[in-house]
Amino acid sequence: MRIDIISVLPELMESPFQTSILKRAVDKGVAEVHFHQLRNWSVNKHRQIDDEPYGGGAGMVMMIEPIDKCISELKAQRDYDEVIYLTPDGVTLNQKIANTLSIKNNLIFLCGHYKGIDQRVRELHITKEISIGDYVLTGGELAACVLADSVIRLLPGVLNDEQSALTDSFQDDLLSPPIYTRPEVYKGLEVPKILLSGNSKMIEDWRYEEAVRITTEKRPDLL
Amino acid sequence: MRIDIISVLPELMESPFQTSILKRAVDKGVAEVHFHQLRNWSVNKHRQIDDEPYGGGAGMVMMIEPIDKCISELKAQRDYDEVIYLTPDGVTLNQKIANTLSIKNNLIFLCGHYKGIDQRVRELHITKEISIGDYVLTGGELAACVLADSVIRLLPGVLNDEQSALTDSFQDDLLSPPIYTRPEVYKGLEVPKILLSGNSKMIEDWRYEEAVRITTEKRPDLL
Repeated sequence: MRIDIISVLPELMESPFQTSILKRAVDKGVAEVHFHQLRNWSVNKHRQIDDEPYGGGAGMVMMIEPIDKCISELKAQRDYDEVIYLTPDGVTLNQKIANTLSIKNNLIFLCGHYKGIDQRVRELHITKEISIGDYVLTGGELAACVLADSVIRLLPGVLNDEQSALTDSFQDDLLSPPIYTRPEVYKGLEVPKILLSGNSKMIEDWRYEEAVRITTEKRPDLL
Repeated sequence: MRIDIISVLPELMESPFQTSILKRAVDKGVAEVHFHQLRNWSVNKHRQIDDEPYGGGAGMVMMIEPIDKCISELKAQRDYDEVIYLTPDGVTLNQKIANTLSIKNNLIFLCGHYKGIDQRVRELHITKEISIGDYVLTGGELAACVLADSVIRLLPGVLNDEQSALTDSFQDDLLSPPIYTRPEVYKGLEVPKILLSGNSKMIEDWRYEEAVRITTEKRPDLL
């Protein structure tokens, strides 16, 4: 998988991609991530990429021309499955969307900034608009990191333990059951006896019941 | 505001806090962010902080003792308004939660990793469990960055233009209207005439109608 991320602040995304699972995926050649500083496609010498909104009002708008030039140049080099704009008014990311994107080959992520992008960029290039949640962030950069992480960790060979992603929350529309590790007793708090029983069938049943109970309690909308 | 972030991968969070709005907030003294490498509270010489789950199964569990020691040490130094665990089975973050947290003084963020934390940590210390969305990430680190960003940008003096946060998506339960900037025509795509009219009352009405229309179309659940 190749992901091209277009942003005015690519440096914000450095450490997440140089650490942990994302780094391992890149090192193993499972994923390629390329950052593109949008200012390099600016059409004036001040490297300007934003301007005031037509009709007035607070905040700046990202101009169409630098974004169009950047995306067009990438598209001339290869076919992209999706050109994704990270924006609070996009479709809300969930595990199903992450699963679907994880089988694509080439993706472009465009990070919004300031008040957002000129609407015409959406008409011209954007195939999917994704929000990571109902809250506003300074820019789309953290959203791009979150989306990349949620997708890249699903690629075969990225997680150490292949089973691990399958038992995560949301993969079966259930939240995870409680988990415990040593010691058996800590400050008077005990591990549930059943987990120490060695009876794997009973443990499996208990975990399923707990997952259903917790989901019913916390997130009935998932059931 | 002071935020203490406990993690096994504090280095993952370096660049987001050294860039843009988060950096400005820290430089201005509006927000203080402290990272704590959980391994420093490990109780054995291998700096181990995770162990196998009781009852078997894939993935490792973060042990209670290092987390308890770290949080207890912080609590001995000052009062915390909330001890927040970032986890996919927490309450889903939204703008209201971000607004509420933005008036607190001292917060602890605990980043989950591997399969999560020993359940007893929740009983002992956690006052709020927050998920940034219905998807699974490699760890809670990106979630902590997202939560910190959504909260810190609301602190007075952080954003340049005070008006800007108030007109964001979600602050009034509406998505933002379309925005445009120069040029007026690009590859045949035109800016809506009304935005060039100079009639600010009409522009304001149009923006409100568009915000309602877009919200009705994309996110009727918000209305």
